[in-house]
Amino acid sequence: MRRTSFAESECPIANSLELVGEWWSMLILRDAFDGHTRFDDFQRSLGIAPNMLTRRLAALVDAGLLEKRPYQQRPPRYEYVLTARGRDFRPVLLALYAWGDRHLTAEGRNLVLVDRATGEEVSPVLVDRATGRPLNEIDAVFTAGPDAGPRMRDRYRVEPG
Amino acid sequence: MRRTSFAESECPIANSLELVGEWWSMLILRDAFDGHTRFDDFQRSLGIAPNMLTRRLAALVDAGLLEKRPYQQRPPRYEYVLTARGRDFRPVLLALYAWGDRHLTAEGRNLVLVDRATGEEVSPVLVDRATGRPLNEIDAVFTAGPDAGPRMRDRYRVEPG
Repeated sequence: MRRTSFAESECPIANSLELVGEWWSMLILRDAFDGHTRFDDFQRSLGIAPNMLTRRLAALVDAGLLEKRPYQQRPPRYEYVLTARGRDFRPVLLALYAWGDRHLTAEGRNLVLVDRATGEEVSPVLVDRATGRPLNEIDAVFTAGPDAGPRMRDRYRVEPG
Repeated sequence: MRRTSFAESECPIANSLELVGEWWSMLILRDAFDGHTRFDDFQRSLGIAPNMLTRRLAALVDAGLLEKRPYQQRPPRYEYVLTARGRDFRPVLLALYAWGDRHLTAEGRNLVLVDRATGEEVSPVLVDRATGRPLNEIDAVFTAGPDAGPRMRDRYRVEPG
């Protein structure tokens, strides 16, 4: 059940979670980035009930992260392919990976991100696009944007400078 | 309901979601990064039912992302403060923010991340720690790690190079 206060509807984090925050949705996207496109592949990978998978795939299509495309006419068969908006979601999964890899690997490292071209490990870290500074070295705070309503302005009264 | 295949338990993304993937947990962490520490603050901000908030806070304490600390003796009152492990989770929320800010802002920008010291906007982007290359310019793929079991090895048969 997802009940949020009115103010939540202005928050991009809450809105993102509204679209993609369901646990299965994130794992479906992970599988899509791993190259899965077909219902049976997702189902086998996730061990998810078919009716649940159908619902979550439809939600991701509705949210514009996956595109449903026919790949066979008779019988009709569809595949699910990441859209540009879906591909843009990858940093969220990579940030989850980086956190889990750092904090939940008591039993060893099971999954490593590598550059396919070189085989070198890739270690994702967030930086500021303009300056290249790592985010963890910046006192970065949220502030109300130009189109924020009164509740967001009230919440985020950051006075920079 | 969270039912995953056996193989999922090896995946750091799935394991991270197991701990923190619940929608409310992410919003509670967002509030914690915004400086909230007290039950009433979270409750007012989120419009969440108190029993649900109690459960989600306890889960985040159990998962080691928040620490429950007394701030008053009579009557006893507690605050919830991010641990190092919790602070490390921020990139996940910032990646969600960046995605939502890019894709879900048809009605304008309500929330902007800024450097508190300068007031300049901060635009989070993932790069490889070692080389500084943006992740979206790298063909980065997951591969089985040194401690992966047979199912992970079967799933991630990437042959780099």
